[in-house]
Amino acid sequence: MKSVDLQIDARWIAPVVPASILEHHSIVIDKGRIIDLCPTARARLQYEATQHLTLNESILTPGFVNLHNHAAMTLMRGVGSDLPLQRWLEDAIWPMENAQVSYDMVALGARWSIAEMLTGGTTTFSDMYFYPDAVAEAALDLGVRCQLATPIIDFPTAWASDAADGISKTVALHDQYKHHSRVQIALGPHAPYTVSDDTFEKLKTLADQLGLRIQCHVQETQSEVDDAVKATGERPMQRLHRLGLLGPDFQAVHVVALSDEDIELLARTNSTAVTCPDSNLKLASGLARTRDLLAAGVNLCIGTDGAASNNDQDLLCEARNATLLAKGGSGDATAMTLQETLQIMTLNGARALGLDDDIGSLEIGKAADIVAINLSDPFLKPMTDPMAAVFYTARARVDQVWIDGKLKAEQGRPAGVDVAAMARDVQRLRKAMESA
Amino acid sequence: MKSVDLQIDARWIAPVVPASILEHHSIVIDKGRIIDLCPTARARLQYEATQHLTLNESILTPGFVNLHNHAAMTLMRGVGSDLPLQRWLEDAIWPMENAQVSYDMVALGARWSIAEMLTGGTTTFSDMYFYPDAVAEAALDLGVRCQLATPIIDFPTAWASDAADGISKTVALHDQYKHHSRVQIALGPHAPYTVSDDTFEKLKTLADQLGLRIQCHVQETQSEVDDAVKATGERPMQRLHRLGLLGPDFQAVHVVALSDEDIELLARTNSTAVTCPDSNLKLASGLARTRDLLAAGVNLCIGTDGAASNNDQDLLCEARNATLLAKGGSGDATAMTLQETLQIMTLNGARALGLDDDIGSLEIGKAADIVAINLSDPFLKPMTDPMAAVFYTARARVDQVWIDGKLKAEQGRPAGVDVAAMARDVQRLRKAMESA
Repeated sequence: MKSVDLQIDARWIAPVVPASILEHHSIVIDKGRIIDLCPTARARLQYEATQHLTLNESILTPGFVNLHNHAAMTLMRGVGSDLPLQRWLEDAIWPMENAQVSYDMVALGARWSIAEMLTGGTTTFSDMYFYPDAVAEAALDLGVRCQLATPIIDFPTAWASDAADGISKTVALHDQYKHHSRVQIALGPHAPYTVSDDTFEKLKTLADQLGLRIQCHVQETQSEVDDAVKATGERPMQRLHRLGLLGPDFQAVHVVALSDEDIELLARTNSTAVTCPDSNLKLASGLARTRDLLAAGVNLCIGTDGAASNNDQDLLCEARNATLLAKGGSGDATAMTLQETLQIMTLNGARALGLDDDIGSLEIGKAADIVAINLSDPFLKPMTDPMAAVFYTARARVDQVWIDGKLKAEQGRPAGVDVAAMARDVQRLRKAMESA
Repeated sequence: MKSVDLQIDARWIAPVVPASILEHHSIVIDKGRIIDLCPTARARLQYEATQHLTLNESILTPGFVNLHNHAAMTLMRGVGSDLPLQRWLEDAIWPMENAQVSYDMVALGARWSIAEMLTGGTTTFSDMYFYPDAVAEAALDLGVRCQLATPIIDFPTAWASDAADGISKTVALHDQYKHHSRVQIALGPHAPYTVSDDTFEKLKTLADQLGLRIQCHVQETQSEVDDAVKATGERPMQRLHRLGLLGPDFQAVHVVALSDEDIELLARTNSTAVTCPDSNLKLASGLARTRDLLAAGVNLCIGTDGAASNNDQDLLCEARNATLLAKGGSGDATAMTLQETLQIMTLNGARALGLDDDIGSLEIGKAADIVAINLSDPFLKPMTDPMAAVFYTARARVDQVWIDGKLKAEQGRPAGVDVAAMARDVQRLRKAMESA
């Protein structure tokens, strides 16, 4: 009998690799890593675990990777409801941000978002927001993994006076966090319509020098594309390609308004596409062509976007809608299988971040980032397919969440967070933001 | 002080009429009816209630009206996943129904569906399925309201040998249930492509004679429309209008593939349109033009459809997606306000059933069909708009549900149902259905 830290016996396991469902298997964890995944009957003979859990009505999956968020915007949940994207940004969000955003606000908002994400199974996220150092501290404190794409934009913000200032702050952050395994700094140019060619070229040079990834909102609406074509004759995706941005280290977010050529470009350059279905619906941006992106072999990932346009941080809900929209939007009921859905929210996200050797699937040797989804709700019966129960109803419930084998959330409560006290702080700060 | 049966003090009340949110108000109930709705401070001075509830973090709404279901199909949850509509019907659903459907199966499946619907706030539903007498008994037993649209189709089914047999059974059922206030019989011709002109004409005559409503699947897919136009030159909606079917007593379900003229016809005839967004997405039928239906003044309602294509019976989830799709599908972020969403799932449903004098809004004199939605989840904070919390996140939780002032569900458990035992029966029957 080998002594190990943790053994979890589960009714079902969806390891992502291979793309199948294992029944009555166990995950064996030692020193934060998965050291075995085998039938429970065998695990019981081989291992003596300090902690031994039996989850008879749960399915285990890899921790979720939320590839696009503005975490601190949980404080702006519901601001500008029912406005289209440009008015929402220009009339509601940007004025509030310019007046209100501070290190302290971001520290609280990011911490609140991470706590909510953890209860929903997200163990890794990508953020794009002002004061990324405040987000980094919150992430380190709560023990999640993150990519922080620093906001680069050609006008003054609460965080930087211009793009050059943003770039120099990014370099400093990269130096500061390069030895933290759970935090990686990336570049976050806001969008083609707010960033100049000159700035994009500087970002590309810097990304190559420092090995940084780039995340950018791209072709979120048809009018963004139409305006660019009218002004310059060039689609934003073509322009980014001309500037050398597209590639395995580039993450194009939203990508709602795509031509066949845009999809082909993303595929050919091995770029990542990130869909944010709820945000795209709520802001009336439209439906991304996720079926076509998958068919072209693009590395498709998923994000919640910020809570101001969602209004939650729940990647499972997001994935449910992504799956339904892939079918309903394409007219193809076989579009996006549930194994593809699960891969999009785990392994594809890990790939986009360059972390797929370490996370994204439940394989021996990887970090023990694991989600247990409880399927005991009686109204899931009759149940013949646990993946359908997870994705096609709202009755599956994320229960335990582990990162590096450490329990980070259980039954909707994040570990190490006084949720009630923090909820009061959050409500108080929002009130102050509105009366300011 | 007036003695009354029940007083509910609530943080918020959304009465639907008027279309506003009341704060710190109370609903006062006696003998199953709403006898007052006033500020809590006043209610405490005027009434002495046998039961007095204080719901400090809940919003009260009218009971939900699920206008399209095949309740017994909860037993077929997940059958034929990821097939398009025609293959799903012809290869998966119809063969199983022909082999398996019986009075006993429908009795169990309908009861299970009603139990699930009750826990989600649905107090009134419309059904279209074989053995409607079994559904009626389940509904009477659990105390919900229903319209039972009997299935009329031009080929033999488990319930009727042909359309004429279905019609004569409908007449018998109408006689049997005409004195039950909570059950009303209607006619349910399956679809224009499975019902002949001759049968539609007979249904119309019968409906006029007996005062019956008619519910029918109409233009669920573009190919249904294309096939009809190719074969006859006539769109199904035009044909139904030519046959005299459209009108205030007609409920057209799905209506995904609509032309401007179809919408105008529905509006001009005061017909009801019923959207089933999750089913339409999952079967890849497409997105209904709900924004345009609302703008034209059509009485728009909502249904879950059967669990085989959904996979749950949760009208709140359905309404959330309907709202998001109205925006994302139309490109108009102001499409479908949350007050409209709530009206679609309550008063519009009541209107379609001719029950709007009695239910559909929280007004003095109406029946006390009430849902309390708990908004205490900490991750709804910051909260500035309770309706956004209900519809734009998945963290609002239907708690208490009353019909005629009697508690029918609480904390996810339906009153008078042994849920665990029934879940076992349901799982056992499904197993038998699959191995038969």
